[in-house]
Amino acid sequence: MADKLTIWTYDWVPPGPRGFVRDIRLRWAAEEAGLAYDVRTVPFGDRTTDHLDNQPFGQVPFLEDGNVRIFESGAGLLHMARKSEKLMPRDASGAAETLQWVIAALNSIEIVSVPWWFLEVSGHEDNGLAEWMEMRLAQLEAVLSERDWLAANRFTAADLIMADVLRVSKVRAHGERPATEAYVARLTARPAFLKAYSDQIAHFAAADIERQTTGD
Amino acid sequence: MADKLTIWTYDWVPPGPRGFVRDIRLRWAAEEAGLAYDVRTVPFGDRTTDHLDNQPFGQVPFLEDGNVRIFESGAGLLHMARKSEKLMPRDASGAAETLQWVIAALNSIEIVSVPWWFLEVSGHEDNGLAEWMEMRLAQLEAVLSERDWLAANRFTAADLIMADVLRVSKVRAHGERPATEAYVARLTARPAFLKAYSDQIAHFAAADIERQTTGD
Repeated sequence: MADKLTIWTYDWVPPGPRGFVRDIRLRWAAEEAGLAYDVRTVPFGDRTTDHLDNQPFGQVPFLEDGNVRIFESGAGLLHMARKSEKLMPRDASGAAETLQWVIAALNSIEIVSVPWWFLEVSGHEDNGLAEWMEMRLAQLEAVLSERDWLAANRFTAADLIMADVLRVSKVRAHGERPATEAYVARLTARPAFLKAYSDQIAHFAAADIERQTTGD
Repeated sequence: MADKLTIWTYDWVPPGPRGFVRDIRLRWAAEEAGLAYDVRTVPFGDRTTDHLDNQPFGQVPFLEDGNVRIFESGAGLLHMARKSEKLMPRDASGAAETLQWVIAALNSIEIVSVPWWFLEVSGHEDNGLAEWMEMRLAQLEAVLSERDWLAANRFTAADLIMADVLRVSKVRAHGERPATEAYVARLTARPAFLKAYSDQIAHFAAADIERQTTGD
């Protein structure tokens, strides 16, 4: 019998990031794969210090799987993908396609979308990453115009993480990309996403009530 | 007998990026692991269009391994790591540590260092990513002050990619980080890196001579 996974996230976050804290990537993956998991928490208030010895960047999530502890949502996702064929096909080509698109989401799309987003929300009027952002989203739109899934002709971990990267409100609202929009809408309508999303919202809402009760 | 790997890169690049084109990550990995490989090329001049059906972002490198083709340098590296214990330990903890630090290089460090670098070189005087960049490099310096290797107490693919991310001249010149500097110096003194580096320099230098000869 496999160990139950533990997904670690913050005990509380302000309303803004709720629904977007990256533990959702691991919750969603566990729901898709039917892997049993618990959710445990570290203090949001301590995140700027080294809140845990094994998370030097003060981020969540990290994943516990028996004796293995692994930070970085992308790494946790790839670790889970090794445990479930639902997240990553077992044939060499399908596995390689899934891997390349997981990394593309992190290192070709998010490498520009997150800093672009950061410059937008921190009020830089002349966003120096705008052109690069346009190019990458246009290239991705071209890919998604031609197929429903990024890898192996079916849902994989690659779609999970790419949809999570793309569903950020400012990114979605940025430009006319019908294939990308349909892709994100289709992925975020999956029961496993909806379960993960509502569980995350409920987790932080419960923390609000606790804080009010204890006067924290 | 395993298939020989093929590492695809550009046929030519201008002098600036030489030594830094990302095929070096796969060359270096192959040299460390003792995996046989060829290098083949696609036209640099066509990179802004979809230069190959399986590289939608017009980037190099991509890796060919028998019937498997895989783009994204990080994905190619993880694919190679599965083939060689020298790049990634085979025990669950060592493999997870290596994976998390490979992803950290791509999605916690490079996600800020590359856009920060881009804003610097494109002449943005007020680099809106400076504070984030400082924070991440300081967190990494704290880690590297306490150990020689990122994962599993020995050289892995995680050090390979982290050193490649950090050795970019502007990143190295940015601030006083003795542990990081010693780490990069140590990694880039490895014979496998030096071989990969000098091979890449020679590859593009040979292309210069060819262009002069053919008047291209």
